[in-house]
Amino acid sequence: MEFQTPPTIIGHGAVGGRKEAQGPLAADFDQTFDDTALNTQSWEKAEAQLQKEAVALALHNAGLKPAQIDFIFAGDLLNQCISSTFGLLNYQIPFLGQYGACSTMAQTLLMAAIMVESAAGNTAAAVTSSHFCTAERQFRTPLEYGAQRTPTAQWTATASGCVVLGKGGKVKVTRGLAGKIVDLGVKDPANMGAAMAPAAADSIYQFLSDTSTSPKDYDGIFTGDLGEVGTKLLLGTLRDNGVDLSKIHNDCGLMLYDREKQDVHAGGSGCGCSASVLCGHLLRRMERGELANILFCATGALMSTTSQQQGEAIPGICHVIQLTTEARGS
Amino acid sequence: MEFQTPPTIIGHGAVGGRKEAQGPLAADFDQTFDDTALNTQSWEKAEAQLQKEAVALALHNAGLKPAQIDFIFAGDLLNQCISSTFGLLNYQIPFLGQYGACSTMAQTLLMAAIMVESAAGNTAAAVTSSHFCTAERQFRTPLEYGAQRTPTAQWTATASGCVVLGKGGKVKVTRGLAGKIVDLGVKDPANMGAAMAPAAADSIYQFLSDTSTSPKDYDGIFTGDLGEVGTKLLLGTLRDNGVDLSKIHNDCGLMLYDREKQDVHAGGSGCGCSASVLCGHLLRRMERGELANILFCATGALMSTTSQQQGEAIPGICHVIQLTTEARGS
Repeated sequence: MEFQTPPTIIGHGAVGGRKEAQGPLAADFDQTFDDTALNTQSWEKAEAQLQKEAVALALHNAGLKPAQIDFIFAGDLLNQCISSTFGLLNYQIPFLGQYGACSTMAQTLLMAAIMVESAAGNTAAAVTSSHFCTAERQFRTPLEYGAQRTPTAQWTATASGCVVLGKGGKVKVTRGLAGKIVDLGVKDPANMGAAMAPAAADSIYQFLSDTSTSPKDYDGIFTGDLGEVGTKLLLGTLRDNGVDLSKIHNDCGLMLYDREKQDVHAGGSGCGCSASVLCGHLLRRMERGELANILFCATGALMSTTSQQQGEAIPGICHVIQLTTEARGS
Repeated sequence: MEFQTPPTIIGHGAVGGRKEAQGPLAADFDQTFDDTALNTQSWEKAEAQLQKEAVALALHNAGLKPAQIDFIFAGDLLNQCISSTFGLLNYQIPFLGQYGACSTMAQTLLMAAIMVESAAGNTAAAVTSSHFCTAERQFRTPLEYGAQRTPTAQWTATASGCVVLGKGGKVKVTRGLAGKIVDLGVKDPANMGAAMAPAAADSIYQFLSDTSTSPKDYDGIFTGDLGEVGTKLLLGTLRDNGVDLSKIHNDCGLMLYDREKQDVHAGGSGCGCSASVLCGHLLRRMERGELANILFCATGALMSTTSQQQGEAIPGICHVIQLTTEARGS
């Protein structure tokens, strides 16, 4: 999809937890919380609170009130997306729940862009979140077990990111691609990077081919959240198909934490990882003029504990968004 | 949202299980299955198969191949929407996962309509499903317990419905409204009708008011799935606000089963209930000219077992779609 009158980002907000505040992108968060429960009674309520805060900051940044937002697209990793429901309940904005696992930030942004470009609304917001503690107990083992993590495992970010789209912002949503579900049979739930890398390769290859562009046309191609294992697979797969991404690629899962000092194994993950890296770090760099033309390619692993227990593989998906600023732009 | 060049329904498919095949709408299903496991090894795989079959039938009906569909919007009640992922995996259609609980059919239809109207794609499909056995064991108790159901409980339909949108069909998607999350504090998970009725009242009232229309302008206003309890609350709430829906209202949850003969308590529910009633019964009636202008108002309860256990209420949501045929139309 190429947007004829590209919607622009008129506000964004990124929030994170304690570990995120100790990482290399700490300064790019709008707000971080030292208490991972955010003074609520459960981690689930805390995750909902993260979305609420991210939306509040993005709205403040855009100078808008909730009633001025025509639609909000939101989703998260929790069963039935309850972080979104309970986090956004009080805003009373027409709500369209999305599920794309860790690809949700790209998906919500894509949908919001379509609403604004098609004039279905003047403004639309996109938000997602994840929380280390809610994800561990839902998808893996209760934290109290103290289970040992494998080297391929990634660390679910405790974070949320929100963008508000409308007219007049500096960063434009220029193009978008909705990915297909890709399943190469990877079954190890402790190796999500490997499960999602084929989808990332598929969508990025398709995008470059559809637009007749090559990696050198971009200032950066950012996947999220392949981590170390998935990144190697992505770069290798694309290299085998004649595309060298190595010079301008980075992965949100590798950017959010300092893997030397922070015990995150293969990198960060979770909807909140790529969401907070985009809404904090990347958009700030674009606004400062350091990046003028990037691809944001969030990846998701479409599985549940039930599908795992029933022996299904882990299908992946990747949606691609091109963001540009006037500085380079057309 | 009012569609300037309304997308049309060019194909639809509805499938159901044994209980649905014994109900009053049996003849309107494209296919029903006597074996609730659909020859698969689990109910979850069976539910994925229901979506796959509904899409196959809708595509056949539209005379299109999967590669001719530009986007598919899908969602279901299972954790992480695995029925959609595994059901649609092999179609290789760009996939955008939606979560709106039982409102998903209206939501996917709305999103598909926006994609076609905005020319983001020439065609788009919308599909959702539910399965009594997967829903019971995920949300309530394992079937093996033989737990007794309360009179307010509804029966999750084992069914799926799919529509394909494009140009040239008889039934047009004329207008749509994305609902807000409404939470009046209902906490009983065995009374979803009561939890969703306020959202239905809110969205229908808003739609009538936005369009300056009244119930008599429509041949039918169909909610899904409020059941008996929710329907009474909806009619009462709207009556208190000066809107009399009683003459032209019906609820998909009350239409799918014969409550005298079939033991479904307060009525049917689940994404597949309103989806199959729309894609089987209602669209056939529109094509036969029996209905020319209807509102389809699917309702969802946005909760999870975790939110329940943590004492949260059950917020509801309702999206409204207006469908018209030339017969009456403009």
